Amino acid sequence: VQIAILGTGSVGQTLAARLADLDHQVTLGTRDPATTLARTGPDRYGTPAVADFLAAQPQVRLAAFGDAATGADLIINATHGEASAAALRAAGADQLTGTVVLDVTNPLDTTNGYPPTLWVKDTDSLAEQLQREFPGVRLVKALNTMNCALMVDPGQLAGGDHSVLVCGDDPDAKALVVEVLRSFGWRDIIDLGDLTAARGTEMYVALWVRLFPVVGGAGQFNIKVVR
Amino acid sequence: VQIAILGTGSVGQTLAARLADLDHQVTLGTRDPATTLARTGPDRYGTPAVADFLAAQPQVRLAAFGDAATGADLIINATHGEASAAALRAAGADQLTGTVVLDVTNPLDTTNGYPPTLWVKDTDSLAEQLQREFPGVRLVKALNTMNCALMVDPGQLAGGDHSVLVCGDDPDAKALVVEVLRSFGWRDIIDLGDLTAARGTEMYVALWVRLFPVVGGAGQFNIKVVR
Repeated sequence: VQIAILGTGSVGQTLAARLADLDHQVTLGTRDPATTLARTGPDRYGTPAVADFLAAQPQVRLAAFGDAATGADLIINATHGEASAAALRAAGADQLTGTVVLDVTNPLDTTNGYPPTLWVKDTDSLAEQLQREFPGVRLVKALNTMNCALMVDPGQLAGGDHSVLVCGDDPDAKALVVEVLRSFGWRDIIDLGDLTAARGTEMYVALWVRLFPVVGGAGQFNIKVVR
Repeated sequence: VQIAILGTGSVGQTLAARLADLDHQVTLGTRDPATTLARTGPDRYGTPAVADFLAAQPQVRLAAFGDAATGADLIINATHGEASAAALRAAGADQLTGTVVLDVTNPLDTTNGYPPTLWVKDTDSLAEQLQREFPGVRLVKALNTMNCALMVDPGQLAGGDHSVLVCGDDPDAKALVVEVLRSFGWRDIIDLGDLTAARGTEMYVALWVRLFPVVGGAGQFNIKVVR
């Protein structure tokens, strides 16, 4: 499967490395590849410079958003929440028509420090905002409720005995995402229904940011829905 | 321990029956006992009439909010969210000074049907609103993240292998609540810190209401924080 990942931070890099390991053709999308490649040293979160990441992962390509999205069977939005709409716009709304977009991002407002608040919530969600602005894409929300190490390898924690939540309006798009999740090792995949359920999974992050400093361990925790 | 429970709905009745079984002196508080006792038959949620409940639980008393609160070592707010401030006002802000108030309620707006939205969130919470209006009480938030059957008997589900979240500004008040939770059978009790963490536990309910129709079973589910 040809996969474009929008965003070159820790989430994008982690997804790219794992998906390349799983033999997908992976392209990282960024606004301006030259600028991205010019950065050196880890960023303030300790994420490697993209040039260093690519040197270690030669099977992953880097391209501008639009080039990365061309021909992709699956696009993963791993940009910051406030940059997501611009990234999809740069990827080209026209060529995205019909494409499955997996949105793993949260609408975090970090301007007032930790914990962040949400700039959309309750009666709307980032996922729904993106779906409205890009009605041609088949948007699926998933993986926004845990850190990126667990996203791609849930077996790192409790043998994978915890839950991932999926929602979206297009059943076939959800089926493709569920297939990717299974390939990551997810076993408890809960389909919450249509995309309005993203209000719930994004608002859960308000609890995640409270759990983080208490049960933290670099964010290596997740919820299991016990039923 | 002398316990006043404000609110006579399913949550109040369930807490009252369980706490009475545990040999506490339990009084259900209501706005007007005569009106409450005059109601017959189950309400629209299937909760028994209070008169029938009291007939089956003779050790539980019914009293006006103010009388119920008099002398209580612990007050549990089990009213609807929008009625909570008025109930505490009726209980008497002066006599509540120094009393531990366990708030199990969520700020649900049900005016637009299911799922409900939250009328306070993100940068504030119902728990903090109540603490600000009644600065003399020692408010603890807990048990607002599962149905009332599980609140008082977590062992009904997966042998009790799931989590309850507690927060509040007063360590001794939290310790009293934790003791009550342990007596209910809770083993994984997570202290999230000060009362601002109630923003997280109340916002989690936006996910709960999405899980309910999917994994539902009358709401017999809960999260386990796996770490």
